[in-house]
Amino acid sequence: MNSNDSALFTDLYSLTMAQGFWKTKMNRRAVFEMFFRKQPFGGGFSVFAGLATLADRLLNFKFSGDDIEYLRSLKIFEEGFLRYLSEFRFNGTLWSFDEGSVIFPNEPIIRVEGGLLECQLIEGMLLNTVNFQSLIATKTARVWLASGRGTVMEFGLRRAQGRDGAMSASRAAYIGGAQGTSNVRAGKEFGIPVLGTMAHSWIMAFPGEEEAFETYADIYPEKTIFLIDTYDTLKSGILNAVKVGKKMALKGRNFGVRLDSGDIHYLSMEVRKILDANGLQNATISVSNDLDEYIIQTLTDAKAPIDVWGVGTQMVTGGNEAAFPGVYKMAARENREGQMEAAIKFSDNPEKTTNPGIKQVYRIKDEQGMFVADVLALEDAENPDIIEKNKNYTFWHPSGDYRNFMHTVNGSTIPLLHRIIIDGNPVLNPADNTALYNMPLSGIRSNLSREIEFLDQSYKRLLNPHVYKVSVSERLRVLKMELIKNYLGNRMSH
Amino acid sequence: MNSNDSALFTDLYSLTMAQGFWKTKMNRRAVFEMFFRKQPFGGGFSVFAGLATLADRLLNFKFSGDDIEYLRSLKIFEEGFLRYLSEFRFNGTLWSFDEGSVIFPNEPIIRVEGGLLECQLIEGMLLNTVNFQSLIATKTARVWLASGRGTVMEFGLRRAQGRDGAMSASRAAYIGGAQGTSNVRAGKEFGIPVLGTMAHSWIMAFPGEEEAFETYADIYPEKTIFLIDTYDTLKSGILNAVKVGKKMALKGRNFGVRLDSGDIHYLSMEVRKILDANGLQNATISVSNDLDEYIIQTLTDAKAPIDVWGVGTQMVTGGNEAAFPGVYKMAARENREGQMEAAIKFSDNPEKTTNPGIKQVYRIKDEQGMFVADVLALEDAENPDIIEKNKNYTFWHPSGDYRNFMHTVNGSTIPLLHRIIIDGNPVLNPADNTALYNMPLSGIRSNLSREIEFLDQSYKRLLNPHVYKVSVSERLRVLKMELIKNYLGNRMSH
Repeated sequence: MNSNDSALFTDLYSLTMAQGFWKTKMNRRAVFEMFFRKQPFGGGFSVFAGLATLADRLLNFKFSGDDIEYLRSLKIFEEGFLRYLSEFRFNGTLWSFDEGSVIFPNEPIIRVEGGLLECQLIEGMLLNTVNFQSLIATKTARVWLASGRGTVMEFGLRRAQGRDGAMSASRAAYIGGAQGTSNVRAGKEFGIPVLGTMAHSWIMAFPGEEEAFETYADIYPEKTIFLIDTYDTLKSGILNAVKVGKKMALKGRNFGVRLDSGDIHYLSMEVRKILDANGLQNATISVSNDLDEYIIQTLTDAKAPIDVWGVGTQMVTGGNEAAFPGVYKMAARENREGQMEAAIKFSDNPEKTTNPGIKQVYRIKDEQGMFVADVLALEDAENPDIIEKNKNYTFWHPSGDYRNFMHTVNGSTIPLLHRIIIDGNPVLNPADNTALYNMPLSGIRSNLSREIEFLDQSYKRLLNPHVYKVSVSERLRVLKMELIKNYLGNRMSH
Repeated sequence: MNSNDSALFTDLYSLTMAQGFWKTKMNRRAVFEMFFRKQPFGGGFSVFAGLATLADRLLNFKFSGDDIEYLRSLKIFEEGFLRYLSEFRFNGTLWSFDEGSVIFPNEPIIRVEGGLLECQLIEGMLLNTVNFQSLIATKTARVWLASGRGTVMEFGLRRAQGRDGAMSASRAAYIGGAQGTSNVRAGKEFGIPVLGTMAHSWIMAFPGEEEAFETYADIYPEKTIFLIDTYDTLKSGILNAVKVGKKMALKGRNFGVRLDSGDIHYLSMEVRKILDANGLQNATISVSNDLDEYIIQTLTDAKAPIDVWGVGTQMVTGGNEAAFPGVYKMAARENREGQMEAAIKFSDNPEKTTNPGIKQVYRIKDEQGMFVADVLALEDAENPDIIEKNKNYTFWHPSGDYRNFMHTVNGSTIPLLHRIIIDGNPVLNPADNTALYNMPLSGIRSNLSREIEFLDQSYKRLLNPHVYKVSVSERLRVLKMELIKNYLGNRMSH
């Protein structure tokens, strides 16, 4: 996406650990997974976004001569290792959910197989890329649902967290359901529709509001949207908009108004009445002013006559939750005997003990295609733990206690992790030989809206949604219990 | 900073309005100001950061051939205007506070003078740049004060809002008081110290924790910091760290441990006891795990034995306040007779009615140099409204009501807005002919820590701080009241 990006965009410890693995000849095979433990915004689902950006960055992951020079200046890296880095490319395998998928806690949404060293080096970049885009796609999906699947515009550039905070947010918001963005560069880079109205400064540049509207309408006769709160929404703005709008109507042209302050509910109703009383039933009402999904839900519940929602700050930053809590943990590694071995990270809190081993995620659907549960199953090459149709299973709660449920798969069961990069090469789409990950953004967007349809309404509530089942297979449970028992046994003998 | 940056990083309406000004030959002179209305985080002060980044971007503000091609494809711009854009450079004048200044609501921290069109085109980029860096510098200053001006490390890369969300945050956090960053690319680009420890995956890559620590200490004998919570902090991690650390101590080497989960207060005390009991008084304790200024304040109040604070997510995103509320409004414009005229934006809420006219900000200090108040004064070329020493003034509350205070300036009074760019050219430092804005980051950082010393403690409380006075001069008050009266008069005659 950006030729200036470099592999140096990583945490220092990734490089010092990498040198450690290199120096001690410990660069054995490993498997890492990205997952998250808790839904952001107290929601019932999240949206996976950022895959294409990530794949692009992995395929272009390299250290420039300048980068190596800088690392040398730190005086902590050996020449041999710097030479190794200067030739370093990502040669691992990337498994991933489809971009635009609905995702849930504790399931690996990304799996990376490679040398310990390369798995480690890409950690910071991987998390930075996927965490942010998933946060914004998730937030936008909430906003879009709250608007009754309405017309949501992303207007966040000026309050976004830096340049990429705006660019990546525009991309992710489009995936999450926004119709377009105000960010022209995002329009160019990602092919997203660009949209806009006018600012207060347009009106302030003229001696009067009516002249300002009139001039704008002359220049942009199509889809003109007048901002009507520079002086006073009801006593000035809407009256001048009606004057100019009536002349436009005579020429067969439509227009709209935008409310940007005050009580949006009250003003939208008053403005609608005034427009209708003047025969301007087709004129649209757009609103903005620090909107989020909760305010929007209140307004749609109250049937406020709003046609377009302009959402900025809250949507492009996540508002009061500004980070997606994705983590990246080792799931397996080659031991000294050359065999892959499941790895586990303990915690006194059972919820935080990781699920060990190389895993696939199966989504179980009922006969109507509605999502029933996601199941984590072991995927060792020799004996994969496949979940099949028409069979009966006991699935277990991942925290390792007694909770479980029996289920006969009536609908279908779909493995969700696919190979995107194999040994450093992008998997190609057989239809047209393009990289599988590089699908049109509009396709990713439709993918999500389809997924959302197959998710029961109870998981989509803004507050206190139903908790979707993410379970572990019988075999994975046995492995996890064994590792915990071994570890506790060892600890007691210390 | 990034050669890929383009002027296309703007809101569409800035371009459509610009075409409007161009087409109607209204590109007259104007003055815009950036200010904010409310302190983020409920704090008593904010920190201004991002000036050097902004100046750099203004001086390189241009549309590439590709950009023009894209704009043409939108079919809303005329060829003449596209030609104009393709040659467009910023030729205005930028006034600004010093970077690293302490700032308060309602005062212009940036003033832009230029054609209406150029003032408008840069709006999105300007706000995006300054809002984000100021947010993070402000948050970090709070974290740093809560730590008792301690050692704060910025570790936020993986949860930051995209790539620039991490890069700009590292820069701003360093200004705000962080000692360094884990982000290696930020180290290279900004000359910030880079720092790091080890991840759980290092320990998980070895059959045992002790071997993992031992190997790391062999490779990095200086400043080794062992992460001790992979299996169990007190029953395993600290015991292995002590074993390895004692051998290091015999060779005259020091080390540290890092706590990353559990109850940080309890664990830091227990770990300190164990280290001390083993004669390892010099070993340091670092902590991390979703820290923010409130948690840190609790721990410093409780005298928890913590040497280093690793802060990530909350510091680089702002946590529950993810946007700095800076806005950019017109303050004056040339009228049809070629004279500059004060501009005002009304609001039913007096707090939101803008302060009109071209303004300077004076900081009034007492004889010890402590900050007393900031005053907004008119700065028309012919009759500047200067605030001088040893004179007595009445200063007014900016909201336009009766509140005022009398003050005799005993200490000094300093104008805070300086010219950084004049007619598109950077102002140079006479000492070495470098651009004035381009000062070393460490200088900006010291500038802030000096400013913070001269701000009374009551403004620095985390909760319910004293409100610092930002007042308007008598002349500015008269102008504002006049414009409001004129406007209300006109409105009644409608």
